[in-house]
Amino acid sequence: MLRTMSTYFVRTLRDDPADAEVQSHKLLVRAGYIRRTAPGIYTWLPLGLRVMRKVEAVVREEMDRMGGQEVLFPALLPAEPYKATERWDEYGPTLFKLKDRREGDYLLAPTHEEMFTLLVKDLYSSYKDLPLTLYQIQTKYRDEARPRAGLIRGREFVMKDAYSFDLDEEGLDASYLAERATYQAIFTRLGLEYVIVSAMSGPMGGSRSEEFLHPSPIGEDTFVRSPGGYAANAEAVTTPAPEALPTEGLPEAVVLDTPDSTTIAALVERANALHPRADRPWQASDTLKNVVVALTHPHGERELLVVGLPGDREVDMKRLEASVSPAEVEMATPEDLAAHPELVPGYIGPRVIGPNSPQRVVDEDGIATGSVRYLLDPRVVDGTAWITGADEVDRHVFGLVKGRDFGADGTIEAAEVREGDPAPDGSGPLHLERGIEIGHIFQLGRKYAQALGLTVLDENGKSRVVTMGSYGIGVSRVLAALAESTCDEQGLSWPAQVAPFDVHVVATGKDADVLDTARELSEQLDAAGLDVIHDDRRKVSAGVKFADAELIGIPITLVVGRGLANGVVEVRTRATGERREVPVAEAVGTVTALHRSLLGQEA
Amino acid sequence: MLRTMSTYFVRTLRDDPADAEVQSHKLLVRAGYIRRTAPGIYTWLPLGLRVMRKVEAVVREEMDRMGGQEVLFPALLPAEPYKATERWDEYGPTLFKLKDRREGDYLLAPTHEEMFTLLVKDLYSSYKDLPLTLYQIQTKYRDEARPRAGLIRGREFVMKDAYSFDLDEEGLDASYLAERATYQAIFTRLGLEYVIVSAMSGPMGGSRSEEFLHPSPIGEDTFVRSPGGYAANAEAVTTPAPEALPTEGLPEAVVLDTPDSTTIAALVERANALHPRADRPWQASDTLKNVVVALTHPHGERELLVVGLPGDREVDMKRLEASVSPAEVEMATPEDLAAHPELVPGYIGPRVIGPNSPQRVVDEDGIATGSVRYLLDPRVVDGTAWITGADEVDRHVFGLVKGRDFGADGTIEAAEVREGDPAPDGSGPLHLERGIEIGHIFQLGRKYAQALGLTVLDENGKSRVVTMGSYGIGVSRVLAALAESTCDEQGLSWPAQVAPFDVHVVATGKDADVLDTARELSEQLDAAGLDVIHDDRRKVSAGVKFADAELIGIPITLVVGRGLANGVVEVRTRATGERREVPVAEAVGTVTALHRSLLGQEA
Repeated sequence: MLRTMSTYFVRTLRDDPADAEVQSHKLLVRAGYIRRTAPGIYTWLPLGLRVMRKVEAVVREEMDRMGGQEVLFPALLPAEPYKATERWDEYGPTLFKLKDRREGDYLLAPTHEEMFTLLVKDLYSSYKDLPLTLYQIQTKYRDEARPRAGLIRGREFVMKDAYSFDLDEEGLDASYLAERATYQAIFTRLGLEYVIVSAMSGPMGGSRSEEFLHPSPIGEDTFVRSPGGYAANAEAVTTPAPEALPTEGLPEAVVLDTPDSTTIAALVERANALHPRADRPWQASDTLKNVVVALTHPHGERELLVVGLPGDREVDMKRLEASVSPAEVEMATPEDLAAHPELVPGYIGPRVIGPNSPQRVVDEDGIATGSVRYLLDPRVVDGTAWITGADEVDRHVFGLVKGRDFGADGTIEAAEVREGDPAPDGSGPLHLERGIEIGHIFQLGRKYAQALGLTVLDENGKSRVVTMGSYGIGVSRVLAALAESTCDEQGLSWPAQVAPFDVHVVATGKDADVLDTARELSEQLDAAGLDVIHDDRRKVSAGVKFADAELIGIPITLVVGRGLANGVVEVRTRATGERREVPVAEAVGTVTALHRSLLGQEA
Repeated sequence: MLRTMSTYFVRTLRDDPADAEVQSHKLLVRAGYIRRTAPGIYTWLPLGLRVMRKVEAVVREEMDRMGGQEVLFPALLPAEPYKATERWDEYGPTLFKLKDRREGDYLLAPTHEEMFTLLVKDLYSSYKDLPLTLYQIQTKYRDEARPRAGLIRGREFVMKDAYSFDLDEEGLDASYLAERATYQAIFTRLGLEYVIVSAMSGPMGGSRSEEFLHPSPIGEDTFVRSPGGYAANAEAVTTPAPEALPTEGLPEAVVLDTPDSTTIAALVERANALHPRADRPWQASDTLKNVVVALTHPHGERELLVVGLPGDREVDMKRLEASVSPAEVEMATPEDLAAHPELVPGYIGPRVIGPNSPQRVVDEDGIATGSVRYLLDPRVVDGTAWITGADEVDRHVFGLVKGRDFGADGTIEAAEVREGDPAPDGSGPLHLERGIEIGHIFQLGRKYAQALGLTVLDENGKSRVVTMGSYGIGVSRVLAALAESTCDEQGLSWPAQVAPFDVHVVATGKDADVLDTARELSEQLDAAGLDVIHDDRRKVSAGVKFADAELIGIPITLVVGRGLANGVVEVRTRATGERREVPVAEAVGTVTALHRSLLGQEA
């Protein structure tokens, strides 16, 4: 394919788009790869589409190689299967819903578990048909509350989703590992660094679950690694609970004045000033903070929840969200608090909430009502003593002991994970990093097969529910991650594997010989099988052409200019900045050899 | 690519799907190419997806060859641009509409004129940037009232849509002709017969407009051809109006009894029985039928309309729909008629409607109210005399003369076109055929550019509104048309250009040598660059394998069976039924040569 800049549908922009925060987003827009159509919804311009197709091709080839079979589901789906699995409600406002002209409920699919399950049910019936891996590369829809970072978190995006179907756990494990190896092959081929971390499975349900994260400061995910090899998404980190302590002999709790102490910092200051401790100053970690949040359950019920955690830790909303999913969570509003006068803002203590409240009633079925539910950080074990709210303005209670003076409805993983926290498996202190989720593999198990009736007959003629795995790669997000990880101050710099063109031929000056030679070399490179973009613009300065070439980021630039008088042209490598002059007659050979070497192929 | 039937995700079905009426729909489902997900919405199975990708590739190659540049727009679009061009309303219930979580209006795009216009406006500003042709191959959505015939008329479907941008009419003509030639090349390469006919432009607006129709008895479109070369969609046929006749000397109209004559047949019978004509019997063509229909305009207003036409012609609803578009049309309901007591069902005449009604009031702006609008078939010219309703039960008026006794608000193309009708250009009698619309090209002109402000500066620095063309190919529909035109009683029979595999290797019997040889030949064919599907199933009879091969319709079948004992295998050509035995050693060479010859390439 040979294209010329004078006719190519691309216009590079000098200014960053107003809504762009991350470098890849800015550059993909400025270099003419994508244009924003609506929040989180983008149009692919010719350059961008060529990269996406190349990323897709790598994914497709590796999926085919592992025996995956490609299908393609509609994006517009009837609601019934999603109602059968409850996801019609559980997905909440993230699901785009609509009605057709006959008032039938439809959705734009955010993911296709139900449809794959039903398709296999439709065609297969015997254990002999298994194992099976199906996949598609398809446009998905999620009405994200906060679309951001261009293609990193969009509302319409391209995803490869695969599903495995097996008779038993061993089969599922084998399918899972095959997919895992395929993901490693895909990201390695794309040249995209990744870390495999343990993950929560989220609203899809299921058991074993790992994410492929691309380490990046712009990533939305925080993950942790320990020297001993533990790696997990922060959402999936479990807090090791300390040993419980004896409560015998601990001093009685006392309520003391702590004026104007609605923050932990103020409380610690007042405590040290008014009620100093003998052995050491009071610290934030001596206080028990009670945070009131509001959950919205899938069917719409709103419920208040109090999360108790040591005062030196913040609530991590993503960890909290993951813990309460599929409910949605937000901070409680003044209206929420007004409805519960026992909750005194800034002075909330355990004694009026959860099982500690005198208003708590437990019915025959064990259902508790009358007081707000109370969940504790796992560090708040029996025998620990705390400064916490006394449920009156300007008063806190000192020495309130868990297991003696108060209890809770359970524990919750909601506190932030901090640098140096111990790994749950004892493999050392955790190091925190940020990453972009580029892949997710997990064992769904039988949830969908059970809900939708996907069974096969086994060797003995018995009906068995199939077990499934689910495997996703964010194709458009991978493209953005590649752009982000390879770009520099001058612009994009694509790996040869996915670059929209293999070589960018730049003619500088107005000399007819230069222009002719550039055109001839472009044609020769095209004939040699390379994808060539030729900057043949006549009234554009060399400086602008070079800046455009660096912004667009084709791996190789071939400059035909002044040197031609001496019979040489210049070959530049975008990623390294390396430049070398070669005789005109060797230009095509040099470029094709460089191209092969950038692809990792022997010359 | 080498796939085996024992693991391939395909199950052939013996029974036709209950909802299928046309052969391609039945066979595509039975042979495991597609599955229905919802009315007019299909899932692509591996076989079907492979064909679609090959059809897409042909379209893409030819579009690239003519200089088209591929982009990709979202399917989910904000409403604003469609409101700016009025199409948000004009599209009516065919448009899938939805709201996002912020209550913003969105739609699933049925076509992308607005977005292409805005994109070019976004990036281009000078006449030097033109001409430009952009295209996409993309999933589109139309909430059809009657999805039918499988992929022929779906609600989610794949379309190639292209748009040209030019400064002036000459440029638009050149772009239009280039696209027209490209379509000819595409359909020729695909081996799909087509006829180019004049067309209405429909809700997209515009002027010159042609359709590519594939002649087929299952087609939804009726088109006409004359011996002199006229060809048009029936919707676009204009009726040649006869010369007006003098009204002088014509007898006075008289109202006569015509009991029980609410149909044209009954009226003709009564007229001949009770009021015979001297020179010849009365005929249906002597009567003027007045049909009451209800229009629903884009903003929701309902309006009654009376269409007057010779009694020997039926109203063709598609022609009527095309004439009143973007309004929607249906027959008037009893409620509609009850609101207009002057309209006596079965006896409606011109004298109480349109300009003939004493209730008609015309205001200063020329807006007429007070009586129902009345449009006439072009054949009803001044000086023609008619038997028509007398606006009383059991009475008709005889000899009512157009231009003397009644007028109308205009003419309308709503009457059926009949075999033998004269071509409007005088090129002879029309012959009617049915066809599937596989492509549509038309000159939009400046409608969208004007509405959305797409201008460029011309050579003199003056702002000029760009003129556009719009060009569509129904990619998934083309696939169905290909299936329909090539299938036979036994199943599908794909042209080599788009077949999901090049060769189907069938091993018959249980002999180890047969099975090994079939596998080895499959591998050799794969190594030779062919796409191979190998039927390696062990417990399936030869009969079932042959039936499956014929149903699936791969162009070449290589049978390895009993003949192997004599050193021969059999090569079958699906389309012709030709079979020939060749020595094993020549099998790969014979199949590859046959494949090349089926592709139309020299061996």
